[in-house]
Amino acid sequence: MGAEQRIVELGIVVPEFGGAGYYGEHYGRMRPFRFTGNVLHLSGHVPSRDGAPLHPGRLGAEVTVEQGYEAARQTGINVLAGLRQALGDLDRVSALVKSLNFVACEPRFGEVHRVSSGMSDLMADVFGEEIGVGCRATIGVQALADHHCFETWATFEVRL
Amino acid sequence: MGAEQRIVELGIVVPEFGGAGYYGEHYGRMRPFRFTGNVLHLSGHVPSRDGAPLHPGRLGAEVTVEQGYEAARQTGINVLAGLRQALGDLDRVSALVKSLNFVACEPRFGEVHRVSSGMSDLMADVFGEEIGVGCRATIGVQALADHHCFETWATFEVRL
Amino acid sequence: MGAEQRIVELGIVVPEFGGAGYYGEHYGRMRPFRFTGNVLHLSGHVPSRDGAPLHPGRLGAEVTVEQGYEAARQTGINVLAGLRQALGDLDRVSALVKSLNFVACEPRFGEVHRVSSGMSDLMADVFGEEIGVGCRATIGVQALADHHCFETWATFEVRL
Repeated sequence: MGAEQRIVELGIVVPEFGGAGYYGEHYGRMRPFRFTGNVLHLSGHVPSRDGAPLHPGRLGAEVTVEQGYEAARQTGINVLAGLRQALGDLDRVSALVKSLNFVACEPRFGEVHRVSSGMSDLMADVFGEEIGVGCRATIGVQALADHHCFETWATFEVRL
Repeated sequence: MGAEQRIVELGIVVPEFGGAGYYGEHYGRMRPFRFTGNVLHLSGHVPSRDGAPLHPGRLGAEVTVEQGYEAARQTGINVLAGLRQALGDLDRVSALVKSLNFVACEPRFGEVHRVSSGMSDLMADVFGEEIGVGCRATIGVQALADHHCFETWATFEVRL
Repeated sequence: MGAEQRIVELGIVVPEFGGAGYYGEHYGRMRPFRFTGNVLHLSGHVPSRDGAPLHPGRLGAEVTVEQGYEAARQTGINVLAGLRQALGDLDRVSALVKSLNFVACEPRFGEVHRVSSGMSDLMADVFGEEIGVGCRATIGVQALADHHCFETWATFEVRL
């Protein structure tokens, strides 16, 4: 079963970035994606939902691990929108190569990895183990734009 | 109009790294750039100017957004020096693929993106929209080497 | 002299990840490595030793620069294990392309670069200048998984 069909089965509602849309451009001069050969680079994606940050703030303070996980999952859904924007069809994705994940948190918060699993689990659910499980690193940071609690910087391999 | 001509028009003074120079090597064993095929990877570049950090410190404290923007712009100028060092000629750049940008800041500083636009705007001014606007992410961090307030980690595509 | 022989000379004990092992999978759904062409991407590697973090905590507080350097060196040894897992033989590595290094630290800690040299120096010692010295950037962060004080996110070029 392909990723497009999995999304329907899982009942995931992917936002419509279309040809031009991408909330990131609100933050400065950037483009949502760029190809080098069959490698697709995405700009940072954040947990925007209906135009507002989902669970803004910091882990270890006002944002719980469960909320952070949900924000990371929403970020993953926005990445799906970014992939459709770049590729038209999610079934052209051949691999999540890697994602670098940022969690806004208090000093000494020890569970950044549990937060970014919201993104990784979604990718695995939608694309399956072989395509959807990639390399990963997660770091706890001071601050992200607009007080988002999570951001991902992901790279995919695609069928041209 | 090419990038080399634009630099003259904009009156930008690009430092001379030459074949060997790159302030980064002061910080440890690294090389300023490395190619994989036609993809050019740069080491971290910082807002050094005349051998000293420009506006050292943290955003949200002693460094203003305007100063941070200026530091990011200076970093972009140093990236131009790094590109010349790697390529000889800036007109061999075919794309800014992506940049990951770091802003040293206080907790909960919400405008990291406004700072890194100093780098992005310069790239767009010098290379134009098609080549100079790439993917981007910006994160607020605890600390950078030598109390720099900004650093960029950029990847380009070039004509071999 | 090749890298495998250098490891013996230097008396480095590389842990055995084997085909399946990699401590990172303890932290969430990820794979230790992924190839795009002849570029090898590794997941984040941390200074685990015998199953526990080496020198956990933060630089500028309970972790000294010397301990941080040692943790970064241990991380490099784990990267060697990751390379063997991916390649079988370290002598297939043709270049350390780049590493992005994370140091958990107090605000305003100004020596993150001295810490990550523990990783860079090891790579240079094992692979030599031409192969083992790559691009680099180092940032000070709030927190890493399990209170590790260091993490690296590295990319290599290999002979297929």
